[in-house]
Amino acid sequence: MLFAVTMDVAIPHTLDPDEKAALIAREKAYSQELQRSGEWRHIWRCAGRYSNLSVFDVSGNERLHEILWNLPLFPYMTIEITPLATHPSDIRAA
Amino acid sequence: MLFAVTMDVAIPHTLDPDEKAALIAREKAYSQELQRSGEWRHIWRCAGRYSNLSVFDVSGNERLHEILWNLPLFPYMTIEITPLATHPSDIRAA
Amino acid sequence: MLFAVTMDVAIPHTLDPDEKAALIAREKAYSQELQRSGEWRHIWRCAGRYSNLSVFDVSGNERLHEILWNLPLFPYMTIEITPLATHPSDIRAA
Amino acid sequence: MLFAVTMDVAIPHTLDPDEKAALIAREKAYSQELQRSGEWRHIWRCAGRYSNLSVFDVSGNERLHEILWNLPLFPYMTIEITPLATHPSDIRAA
Amino acid sequence: MLFAVTMDVAIPHTLDPDEKAALIAREKAYSQELQRSGEWRHIWRCAGRYSNLSVFDVSGNERLHEILWNLPLFPYMTIEITPLATHPSDIRAA
Amino acid sequence: MLFAVTMDVAIPHTLDPDEKAALIAREKAYSQELQRSGEWRHIWRCAGRYSNLSVFDVSGNERLHEILWNLPLFPYMTIEITPLATHPSDIRAA
Amino acid sequence: MLFAVTMDVAIPHTLDPDEKAALIAREKAYSQELQRSGEWRHIWRCAGRYSNLSVFDVSGNERLHEILWNLPLFPYMTIEITPLATHPSDIRAA
Amino acid sequence: MLFAVTMDVAIPHTLDPDEKAALIAREKAYSQELQRSGEWRHIWRCAGRYSNLSVFDVSGNERLHEILWNLPLFPYMTIEITPLATHPSDIRAA
Amino acid sequence: MLFAVTMDVAIPHTLDPDEKAALIAREKAYSQELQRSGEWRHIWRCAGRYSNLSVFDVSGNERLHEILWNLPLFPYMTIEITPLATHPSDIRAA
Amino acid sequence: MLFAVTMDVAIPHTLDPDEKAALIAREKAYSQELQRSGEWRHIWRCAGRYSNLSVFDVSGNERLHEILWNLPLFPYMTIEITPLATHPSDIRAA
Repeated sequence: MLFAVTMDVAIPHTLDPDEKAALIAREKAYSQELQRSGEWRHIWRCAGRYSNLSVFDVSGNERLHEILWNLPLFPYMTIEITPLATHPSDIRAA
Repeated sequence: MLFAVTMDVAIPHTLDPDEKAALIAREKAYSQELQRSGEWRHIWRCAGRYSNLSVFDVSGNERLHEILWNLPLFPYMTIEITPLATHPSDIRAA
Repeated sequence: MLFAVTMDVAIPHTLDPDEKAALIAREKAYSQELQRSGEWRHIWRCAGRYSNLSVFDVSGNERLHEILWNLPLFPYMTIEITPLATHPSDIRAA
Repeated sequence: MLFAVTMDVAIPHTLDPDEKAALIAREKAYSQELQRSGEWRHIWRCAGRYSNLSVFDVSGNERLHEILWNLPLFPYMTIEITPLATHPSDIRAA
Repeated sequence: MLFAVTMDVAIPHTLDPDEKAALIAREKAYSQELQRSGEWRHIWRCAGRYSNLSVFDVSGNERLHEILWNLPLFPYMTIEITPLATHPSDIRAA
Repeated sequence: MLFAVTMDVAIPHTLDPDEKAALIAREKAYSQELQRSGEWRHIWRCAGRYSNLSVFDVSGNERLHEILWNLPLFPYMTIEITPLATHPSDIRAA
Repeated sequence: MLFAVTMDVAIPHTLDPDEKAALIAREKAYSQELQRSGEWRHIWRCAGRYSNLSVFDVSGNERLHEILWNLPLFPYMTIEITPLATHPSDIRAA
Repeated sequence: MLFAVTMDVAIPHTLDPDEKAALIAREKAYSQELQRSGEWRHIWRCAGRYSNLSVFDVSGNERLHEILWNLPLFPYMTIEITPLATHPSDIRAA
Repeated sequence: MLFAVTMDVAIPHTLDPDEKAALIAREKAYSQELQRSGEWRHIWRCAGRYSNLSVFDVSGNERLHEILWNLPLFPYMTIEITPLATHPSDIRAA
Repeated sequence: MLFAVTMDVAIPHTLDPDEKAALIAREKAYSQELQRSGEWRHIWRCAGRYSNLSVFDVSGNERLHEILWNLPLFPYMTIEITPLATHPSDIRAA
């Protein structure tokens, strides 16, 4: 089932640059693995902000929470979740 | 280029039921035509709300405005737009 | 899977009293049927407000949306949804 | 009497990891003791957030405050309380 | 137990003046009866607003809700509740 | 004349524990002196929050400001003031 | 004592034009009488809005409320009050 | 001097279509006259909203208020004003 | 021309006390010089808050910005500006 | 295509003064280069705030994001974007 998720990132200015670079690299690898497995269906950058809009296709709330809680950047994120359903106007829904 | 658009609908309770049904039918036809042409790439229902989250793929701001302004339900909608860009972690961006 | 749902009700003052009474009766019957089937697990009144806090146990987002969209009072409600997951401190989760 | 309580946790990034682990362990023990005694009736994780939604069944405001004030994580929490009453549609209320 | 309650009143401009006067008279009688019985301990006008700040001393959430739900002006009110506890600095608390 | 005052306290986690304890002791003494003199008429703890709701009975705005500005915890407080007047339904106002 | 008061006016579009003109004329006369008596010390238009920022010099909260409550436009106003005190940098305060 | 002004328009759904068309025509003529005179320097449509972002170049606050207050659509607008000054990085400011 | 300006001050708790005292002394001298020259027409303390409400009478936006930008406490202030115009009810406006 | 962009700057008080001066110099050079190339069409200071309102004329969302993401002050900015379209009343739009 689908969830839209907005993640706003605020890494503290005091974080060590190397630690920060490593963190971002781990975040990227983690995200790409889930994209390849099909659970992280879309990821877009929100223009002009350190944020993304993503769409997840997961088995349910438990799995969604597990994915988000384990994001390497989770401690520095503010996350908003919108559960999605099929729209009656969607041409793929017929 | 891509834009995420959230549309919240609030049709007045005083609207004539037939007029309302006709309006919703026109909205559906309008949306499906744009989905078929490829400009209205995604439309999801936000669960539990008279709202949708959509993604548009258009030539620019002028075209995006033209599409939204001509929505049959536009007078009853509150619309929020987020311009999207490629995310560096997107596996399709490499 | 579980969802917490807050429903704030605002019935227009202009609604006919009989129509209003019938609407509320249908809402009650609808809710109680879903409570008996086990999908509407909890319903509490928020003290001093025409609102309730409910917990639903449903198969997913599609079913949650279907239940809420068909609430007789849906056109007069503002709804907020929080997807729930197991808490690591929950004694029933071990 | 029942209260819904939302707790949002924000532990400072500068807290010593051992101190943090000990704090979380004490929080868990404290919560589980109150769950066993019946006062902390429900605890759910809000998906994707370091937050929980709980329901307390206590003798009154004084006891509710005492429980919350003594949470090991209290200094790092933002708490919202909703006093609950019986809903007229609740099938267990008849 | 004590609750602080803020009530903001917004009577529709279209309400019949006689009906409005009768409503306000019933509200006053209702409030004064509860003040005399001791449950509505304080009522103050918030200067410059059609609002009051009140303190109730009731047996619990159920009774608080019953009192507020039956206010003649309830359909026109926005209500906020703050559960109160004894403050450790209160000289009457020793 | 009466003012309702809400004080939310946020002492920095980095404050030295002894300094914090001394500060809180001075706050308590300061508050109790004003309670005994009759200017700080009520003080209640807002359940579940490091906050209080107080009612002051002072000669005017200048005195109210002087009292609040000199609170030992003032640098760590967010304060909201509501000027109060007699409510026409108050049984003690006749 | 001084209070800053912001008044935002929202007269319903359905109000009869003559009634509206009469109301505004009464509001003006009422304001000017209080300006002449010295209680309504300043009145400025907030540019681009149907709002004013005023400063009142009154005996206290009771009188402030009486003045505002009796404004002919009161039923159509949203009012915010800021109690003012002498600023230590004010050259007239020495 | 320059002011950025955002105007959000909300024409009531009950307004007569002819009256609405006439109003919009007068608004357009009024705006274009001020654009030609140089006081209304820029006007852009905010994409997807019945709103515009404008920049005015006027003699001061009094003139800005006069222009906005006399907009034919003023009664249906929510207006926000940002006074502008020269930015030190502006290449035309040297 | 007139502007209402609200300044909320939040000096970091970590600032050296001597530096803080010097800063506040410079702020006071700066403000009083502008009060004497007539540009800073009013300054009031907002009761119970480290804030002031001021009225400036300046040649325009450029001068207003210059004054505010050079406030010694500017780096620690949150500032809100309301451009003011003559109110039609002002008895001094005739 | 055009975008209005508001940038609010909050440089930490702990940043080294030389580093801060260098950062601001690089920001200025970066902005002026883009102003000369025509992509950063307008930049205005919002009076009384460490903020600017800018208008960009870029090829699309990707380019807008690239420009903003690479601002030397980006890590210290809060940015809001409004996509702009031609306004039907714009005299240059005919």
